Amino acid sequence: MPPRTSFETYDCSIARTMAVLGEPWTALILRDLFIGVTRFDALHTHLGVSRKVLTLRLGRLVSDEIVVRRAYAQRPERFDYILTGKGWQLCDILLAISAWGDKWTMAETGPPALIRHRQCDHLTVAEIRCSHCGEPLHAADTEVTPLR
Amino acid sequence: MPPRTSFETYDCSIARTMAVLGEPWTALILRDLFIGVTRFDALHTHLGVSRKVLTLRLGRLVSDEIVVRRAYAQRPERFDYILTGKGWQLCDILLAISAWGDKWTMAETGPPALIRHRQCDHLTVAEIRCSHCGEPLHAADTEVTPLR
Repeated sequence: MPPRTSFETYDCSIARTMAVLGEPWTALILRDLFIGVTRFDALHTHLGVSRKVLTLRLGRLVSDEIVVRRAYAQRPERFDYILTGKGWQLCDILLAISAWGDKWTMAETGPPALIRHRQCDHLTVAEIRCSHCGEPLHAADTEVTPLR
Repeated sequence: MPPRTSFETYDCSIARTMAVLGEPWTALILRDLFIGVTRFDALHTHLGVSRKVLTLRLGRLVSDEIVVRRAYAQRPERFDYILTGKGWQLCDILLAISAWGDKWTMAETGPPALIRHRQCDHLTVAEIRCSHCGEPLHAADTEVTPLR
């Protein structure tokens, strides 16, 4: 197999984000950290991912400062993984991904989970909105101007 | 290599979305379709992806009803690829992905492109907001309740 393309070096914010988020398992690891499954062994069991791949993915997330590793036991040393601010903001995107998946991939069964917004105490669906006017922001209604 | 895990069969809207969006190149193919690079040969040149991988990815997007193939020339037959409603909504997520990438991966150079919202005619950054209260929706402020 040829080496994987290094999307993290592209001058494109989508490519660089997907270099992290697009690794197999990484989105599900972030989902689990976000819902509170933070210990290595619990992640391994809950995800059914190999310890080798889990170690690689968590190592990458640590080096990208998306999570920090914290020892919760000594002898033997055991770790859990805590989202940073950068990591939490990546999880915000998971809410938008989940909303699309609920709508377009779960027709037969309905959504597998409900999401409640603690601030307003109502069930919520993530919406993508314009930072200027606050209206729904659709890719079809945007113009992209390259800067370089 | 063991076979890739089939995330599209998971009962998880994040896994099923990432089964599409997480394939190498797919997010960039969608980005190009969204900015108007829609012909096979133009995608091949603009992305620098092999014709083989591009064919595979476009075929998957067609079978997932994210794009439709349309002939724009005969003898030889040539195709371009048009986003469906489902595909455009997936591109909306790219705006959120791009916003995260601009903030967290482009510190040295600044964002590579600006996005203008045609409706309000202002530069925009995609924000993820609650469908109920309209306030910013952060993963850290949500509760997830599994339904099955």
